[in-house]
Amino acid sequence: MWMAELSSRSGLPVPTIKYYLRAGLLHPGQSVGATRASYDESHLRRLRLIRALTDVARLSLDVVSQVLSAVDDPGLSWHDALGSAHARLGPTRPSAPSPEAVARVERLMRRRAWRLGEGSPHAVVLAAALSALAGLGHDPDDTLLETYADAADAIALREIDAITETDRTDAVEHVVVGTLLLEPVLLAMRRIAQENASRRAAR
Amino acid sequence: MWMAELSSRSGLPVPTIKYYLRAGLLHPGQSVGATRASYDESHLRRLRLIRALTDVARLSLDVVSQVLSAVDDPGLSWHDALGSAHARLGPTRPSAPSPEAVARVERLMRRRAWRLGEGSPHAVVLAAALSALAGLGHDPDDTLLETYADAADAIALREIDAITETDRTDAVEHVVVGTLLLEPVLLAMRRIAQENASRRAAR
Repeated sequence: MWMAELSSRSGLPVPTIKYYLRAGLLHPGQSVGATRASYDESHLRRLRLIRALTDVARLSLDVVSQVLSAVDDPGLSWHDALGSAHARLGPTRPSAPSPEAVARVERLMRRRAWRLGEGSPHAVVLAAALSALAGLGHDPDDTLLETYADAADAIALREIDAITETDRTDAVEHVVVGTLLLEPVLLAMRRIAQENASRRAAR
Repeated sequence: MWMAELSSRSGLPVPTIKYYLRAGLLHPGQSVGATRASYDESHLRRLRLIRALTDVARLSLDVVSQVLSAVDDPGLSWHDALGSAHARLGPTRPSAPSPEAVARVERLMRRRAWRLGEGSPHAVVLAAALSALAGLGHDPDDTLLETYADAADAIALREIDAITETDRTDAVEHVVVGTLLLEPVLLAMRRIAQENASRRAAR
């Protein structure tokens, strides 16, 4: 297809697509003569992915570019690509957690037999969030943390089972999309469930 | 305490605190003479809350101000204050969901007997996220959605049970803080659990 069709099918303006091409977010089309190029379904799919990452997951283009590099890197197994994409998704400046919160996260991870790859930011992110809660006098108790951990394990197992792609790039894209786009799903559901639990408690 | 002590104990610079006072995010201190005011633990606590909402939950000051108005509004029951704070936390421009996704969310809400207050954005946010996933060919199946919904219900029930405050403002602050600051906790745990499930699947 030509650029005009790529634009109408992806819902993105031509200048935006050209910008993604220049920035290397989108692979080049097949050259046809000196000034035209033709595009295929792989371009459309990548544009939809970029759009979902920016519009729904609200990532900046800079972070999208780093996540896509991990998806595209043929040297990474899909587990490593996931870890690598994950590492790029953490906050850029997590506040420093208290030693108590770090120790608490370490105990939790031992109890659950959770281990993380090198450079994964999630344990620090978790400890920083617990620090902030403790500073406000809203430290969650161990029962609540375990409820969260049970929920996280149940969801993760079900998600990993659901991956049926055998192609590495497809599988990595699935996991990255699932991680990012299912986060709004999970948070929206938690807020819905919370409003309902609160209404039923009728306090 | 004087402004200098409020600054050192909250970790916020004096000009920032003065800005919060002018913006109405922080209630005024007790005037002592023409140019000094004295502050108490309630000021410190409010500053810690503002800091947690901006640093950990990454809200803009504009949204923080709206959330605090809901917390402070004595005319709202704590359930209504929660709904009102929630409504202010949704994305400012959720993309339009497909009719299929809207219908799917309606079926889910009926199945779970979930009901939302007027103006609550979460059903639309959920439908928009499902639309985006469907557009990428990663539509989650009903089993995965139910796994999420079960997790959300388990977490919400446990959280509402954990609220022991009888004072309305304390209870609302607890729920708002819990909603916002426990989101990073839940997402970090899901990513940790996902890295682990992926490593164990060893694909």
